Amino acid sequence: MEIGIIGSGAIGLLFGFHLSENHSVRLYTRRKEQAEALNRDGIVLKNLTGDNRQRKISADTSDNYQEEFLIVAVKQYQLKEIAASLKGCRERKKLLFLQNGMDHLSILKELSQQHDCYAGVVEHGARKESENTVKHTGMGKTNLGSFGTGAAEELALQLDSPAFPFQWKENCRVMLAEKLLINTCINPLTALLGIKNGELISNSQYNLMMRSVFEEAFAILKLTDKEKSWDKVQEICAKTHHNVSSMLADIQSGRVTEIDAILGYLIKLSPFPETNAPIIVFLYRSIKGKETS
Amino acid sequence: MEIGIIGSGAIGLLFGFHLSENHSVRLYTRRKEQAEALNRDGIVLKNLTGDNRQRKISADTSDNYQEEFLIVAVKQYQLKEIAASLKGCRERKKLLFLQNGMDHLSILKELSQQHDCYAGVVEHGARKESENTVKHTGMGKTNLGSFGTGAAEELALQLDSPAFPFQWKENCRVMLAEKLLINTCINPLTALLGIKNGELISNSQYNLMMRSVFEEAFAILKLTDKEKSWDKVQEICAKTHHNVSSMLADIQSGRVTEIDAILGYLIKLSPFPETNAPIIVFLYRSIKGKETS
Repeated sequence: MEIGIIGSGAIGLLFGFHLSENHSVRLYTRRKEQAEALNRDGIVLKNLTGDNRQRKISADTSDNYQEEFLIVAVKQYQLKEIAASLKGCRERKKLLFLQNGMDHLSILKELSQQHDCYAGVVEHGARKESENTVKHTGMGKTNLGSFGTGAAEELALQLDSPAFPFQWKENCRVMLAEKLLINTCINPLTALLGIKNGELISNSQYNLMMRSVFEEAFAILKLTDKEKSWDKVQEICAKTHHNVSSMLADIQSGRVTEIDAILGYLIKLSPFPETNAPIIVFLYRSIKGKETS
Repeated sequence: MEIGIIGSGAIGLLFGFHLSENHSVRLYTRRKEQAEALNRDGIVLKNLTGDNRQRKISADTSDNYQEEFLIVAVKQYQLKEIAASLKGCRERKKLLFLQNGMDHLSILKELSQQHDCYAGVVEHGARKESENTVKHTGMGKTNLGSFGTGAAEELALQLDSPAFPFQWKENCRVMLAEKLLINTCINPLTALLGIKNGELISNSQYNLMMRSVFEEAFAILKLTDKEKSWDKVQEICAKTHHNVSSMLADIQSGRVTEIDAILGYLIKLSPFPETNAPIIVFLYRSIKGKETS
């Protein structure tokens, strides 16, 4: 299959490397220097065992997207611009969006009149180390669901490989909501308390705090099977117990966090957040306060 | 007047020094070494301008309280033991209690059948520097109210002096509740966020967080004139903007905090804390978690 990947951060490079094993991949990047480096040296993947592997790839700085299948791997706040270009594509394309949170669903809804839209939840860990080098810091899979009428199962099968698995999910909205719930429980609390993920289960008081956040978020997201979801949150904390969450890393480095895409979205979704989600509002303010402190 | 002071921490020493200007003062301490140092060298007061002054005083390790007027300046958690000794005093004494919070009111209620009980709110800043040395870090006054039928106005007049003022308050319970409200708003938040008092007003997000805590606490304490109380809280933050709160200092030094006497008391007072005071419960857990982290 011919695949275009829009965005060349850690996730764009990771997908570019792995999908180019079985497909013809073109990377759309905004900066000329990066396109030149990629066309010259390909993508270098560093994996956990210390091996470096290199693959040829083509890169482009245009927004003249030719491929029938496009993966959108830019940050939430760059999506509006990309969406405008995608509206310019007259052909019915397959579009896979990999953003965190659920705030981009309104954009998918609009685009799905014209294209087949899919959303993905990436469980891999990756860190960009240079223009064309990405480190694969945690092996996982990519969950993939259809937002409209597209055939997610077929697409997942086409992309799946032993080295880079894809899994089809029937309900795209539930898949994104479950990921958002996990981010909601782990990221803001670790950033506020200055702790690694594991302390949210090893410290009983912090665990009670996480449960309160969970209860409010679960009610807003209208998910089912509460205790199964709670077990999943606890399981992720245990699995990643030595990890510094991305939000804590952002706070420690003085960067803007993803708090608006996570708690900000839940607050927007709740009709009376001060009454129905007081702890989420309180927690949201603590992170916004830390961003400016 | 003959005055006995039970407890020889910073507040006991500060009161001992100042009241011995016009009264005969005896300090009741638990440790022999401290009693010996005090009997030998008196109390040394360091004030803000760097002056050191010294006053002779007598000290005692017994609990054979002879004076008609006793000031109880021990920590909340040492009160039970002292109360048992005070019940052994058959004479009707005047007892002034200087503890933070309101959790000790049940003890005062019991003792007031036998003695005249008063409660005080100390606005001075003081730090103990050695067995017999106290530094007066912030000049304030002592507010004093009667818990039962005692004449607080008369007592305040007897103790008052230009160098160490006392002010009479008509409603003892309101006086303590107002102080508790201020402690509730400032101490746990500064300890959780790791900030100085002033950031609770200079950072608009933190200020919104403090307002949420204030709203819950105000409702539990059943005080009147909400906006006047809020102005007072803000005023104290401004006045002490460079200060590290005692609770933040306790957390930073790995000591147990006064969280149980402050938020713990409010939670006990609230019939359905998880519903009516969710933020106070959340904040309480964060500090308990930090104590064990």
